[in-house]
Amino acid sequence: MTTAVGDAGGVVTAVDVVDSDPTSVVVDVTCDTADSAHAEQVVDILEELPGVEVRKVSDRTFLLHLGGKIEVTSKVALRNRDELSRAYTPGVARVCLAIANNPEDARRLTIKRNTVAVVTDGSAVLGLGNLGPAAALPVMEGKAALFKRFAGVDAWPVVLDTQDTEEIINVVRCIAPAYGGINLEDIAAPRCFEIEARLREMLDIPVFHDDQHGTAIVVLAALTNALRCVEKAISDVRVVVCGAGAAGTAIVKLLLREGVGDVVAVDRAGALHRGSPAVNPNWEWLAQNTNRSNIQGDLRTAIRGADVFIGVSAPNLLNGDDIATMAPRSIVFALANPDPEVDPREAREHAAVVATGRSDQPNQINNVLAFPGVFRGMLDAHATGYTDDMGVAAARAIADTVGEDKVNPTVIVPSVFDARVAPAVAAAVRAAAKGGQVVDSEVDSDVDAEVEGRTAVPGF
Amino acid sequence: MTTAVGDAGGVVTAVDVVDSDPTSVVVDVTCDTADSAHAEQVVDILEELPGVEVRKVSDRTFLLHLGGKIEVTSKVALRNRDELSRAYTPGVARVCLAIANNPEDARRLTIKRNTVAVVTDGSAVLGLGNLGPAAALPVMEGKAALFKRFAGVDAWPVVLDTQDTEEIINVVRCIAPAYGGINLEDIAAPRCFEIEARLREMLDIPVFHDDQHGTAIVVLAALTNALRCVEKAISDVRVVVCGAGAAGTAIVKLLLREGVGDVVAVDRAGALHRGSPAVNPNWEWLAQNTNRSNIQGDLRTAIRGADVFIGVSAPNLLNGDDIATMAPRSIVFALANPDPEVDPREAREHAAVVATGRSDQPNQINNVLAFPGVFRGMLDAHATGYTDDMGVAAARAIADTVGEDKVNPTVIVPSVFDARVAPAVAAAVRAAAKGGQVVDSEVDSDVDAEVEGRTAVPGF
Repeated sequence: MTTAVGDAGGVVTAVDVVDSDPTSVVVDVTCDTADSAHAEQVVDILEELPGVEVRKVSDRTFLLHLGGKIEVTSKVALRNRDELSRAYTPGVARVCLAIANNPEDARRLTIKRNTVAVVTDGSAVLGLGNLGPAAALPVMEGKAALFKRFAGVDAWPVVLDTQDTEEIINVVRCIAPAYGGINLEDIAAPRCFEIEARLREMLDIPVFHDDQHGTAIVVLAALTNALRCVEKAISDVRVVVCGAGAAGTAIVKLLLREGVGDVVAVDRAGALHRGSPAVNPNWEWLAQNTNRSNIQGDLRTAIRGADVFIGVSAPNLLNGDDIATMAPRSIVFALANPDPEVDPREAREHAAVVATGRSDQPNQINNVLAFPGVFRGMLDAHATGYTDDMGVAAARAIADTVGEDKVNPTVIVPSVFDARVAPAVAAAVRAAAKGGQVVDSEVDSDVDAEVEGRTAVPGF
Repeated sequence: MTTAVGDAGGVVTAVDVVDSDPTSVVVDVTCDTADSAHAEQVVDILEELPGVEVRKVSDRTFLLHLGGKIEVTSKVALRNRDELSRAYTPGVARVCLAIANNPEDARRLTIKRNTVAVVTDGSAVLGLGNLGPAAALPVMEGKAALFKRFAGVDAWPVVLDTQDTEEIINVVRCIAPAYGGINLEDIAAPRCFEIEARLREMLDIPVFHDDQHGTAIVVLAALTNALRCVEKAISDVRVVVCGAGAAGTAIVKLLLREGVGDVVAVDRAGALHRGSPAVNPNWEWLAQNTNRSNIQGDLRTAIRGADVFIGVSAPNLLNGDDIATMAPRSIVFALANPDPEVDPREAREHAAVVATGRSDQPNQINNVLAFPGVFRGMLDAHATGYTDDMGVAAARAIADTVGEDKVNPTVIVPSVFDARVAPAVAAAVRAAAKGGQVVDSEVDSDVDAEVEGRTAVPGF
């Protein structure tokens, strides 16, 4: 069997005998395969072996997800009556009254201080489309696990059985009191824009759509270092952003905020320009506020002579010859997942710097670099809103983590496991929050354990 | 200082010098006091001592709640690229697709299997009244901690910034996909009845209002053993339930379900009877379906000759003389908190069995005996609804945990720290769920780790 698995390209890592009798033996074979299609091939080959019967096939990715990936744990001991009576009734009553008398205390005396809702309607799950709330839950759980792993943030999945804009807004408004921030996730455009804008007006906590702002932050960070590699100033370059959905729009806005020379947004209809039909308010805004030379035509036309291509769209739109038409020392970020807009190997023949969303290529543009630190910073600052200033600060912090001496065309972003990233991002966002006045009080989270008070109740 | 604290009735447990210079010393004095008013007295006395300045007073109950009492933790390791790619993108995509193809898999592959929402609108927080969602959060966090401590259930607080019945129903409907059950908590009557009833119709997971059903279960358990003490049959006794709100109504219904001889509900308007004004649908139902002899009049009239008094109402409504008018070997559950309907010491002079909601008296009627095991059982059974059969089964399990040989008038319920309670309740509820057909599939939670499948995707 091990020979057969090896011949099929699988790598056997363990063989355990789990049962046997005089006529048969049950063996647990563990092996690595390239992907699930390959796994099926290996199973087929095993089944064809004389005397072999495949009883069960497990998949360690599925085993990992069994029962969910996060849990709720108590931070307080409940060993005896005394502890119970302080954490719950009757002791908890005094804490409730303190918050009722001074609502600001909710940030000190409850989970609100460190807790973020990860909200989705399941309408745009990864690149898979509209799978609905239940099927989106594994992604949101994973996101919650990343929040804790990378920034100590308690994040909780809120998967909504509705795709109605008004209902989504209302549900998030209603559940908000327990949270210090809202992370919108995998909500389809253009619905996501209205939901985010309306919630920002309603709520006194930050609302951050990661598909937009998280992506834009990491793209700006990567672009910052890519421009260092090719020695061009951001104010001099022309950028083509392909895909004018949630991510593309946020990227354009952050680049404009950072003073990019020119940016052209391209979607199925071609380059958005004055004269483009007003398909939706978002595209209309882009048509009016980008594309300085009013370039018209398709993607190939738009990228001719451009310094930077940023794709957040669809696989295999371009080839190496197209990249060759860009300006000298061009930069290509082909971020469509899992298959980029252009084969990165082809792109690398003509561009000076190439990045993708893939982990098996250099320069992976991964939101994990941004969102944990961004929320850490906003929570610590008691920020009441997310601003583009915070986004720019976060992007610079990510870019600077690489170190100017280490930046090169294959290293424009740090590793997601670089432990310096999230604290640097958090510090930058916190400073931006204070500079930008989007904090609701003078805050130092370390001060919370040292609260002043004359009397025992409700001072503590 | 320690003498002064001692003279004031405080118990000094520690003195730490935290700072000093040639002219002063800063000392951290830790001491126990009876309550917060007593703490203030102790502080006042210290301040009056010559040369003493009180700089800061901390309260360990408040310190315990700082930053909240629960956290979200990852069950999966995220140490390297391989683990990241299985827990999150790209590996998670296959898990999402499996659930999209077979929604039942959400119970296996996500937190839904073990997760309960603890939902409140903050309208009836403990006995404190309408404090709103933020001030209710410490209670809901505490409840979540108890769920984990006593039954391994992951519970999450959902505190709602609305007290509109329709909005509450809609929010809970929308957030339901992530949860295996809904625990409604501290929602005022009569709103709570409609919210519960409508959600039960809409959702395919159990909806359980703990203030109603949790209380009713523990009361029935306690009554079962109290009746054993006085050797009366439930079918022979007349019970007066004082307080026809959420808890009282649920108690009446569960007692009727268990075949109580007669039950009379009493509220501010006196005994509810045919002829009572139809103040609300709930009271109307009680007036029509209880009070076999159609007793009219106030509480004192109602309890004359009654075998059992169950109070879930207000403090100090009765005295010992009133209890003396009850039938011989009477049973008194005075559950108003913190001050019971009748002083339990007075009641004990005339009644055979007395119980309260207080932890400093024998026979504490505490919902913690019920809700963790009830949800554990419902989750394990994949129950689609909560039924009174489950409630009766849970009550019997709690009562039987005491052991017939150990039951006596001061021990009618087990300790909340009795580790046998939650598993016994869970087993009873699970059996009732299966007998009552409120399960959505043939289930054995232990089987989940041994899932059968021919191919690696989506079988696992």
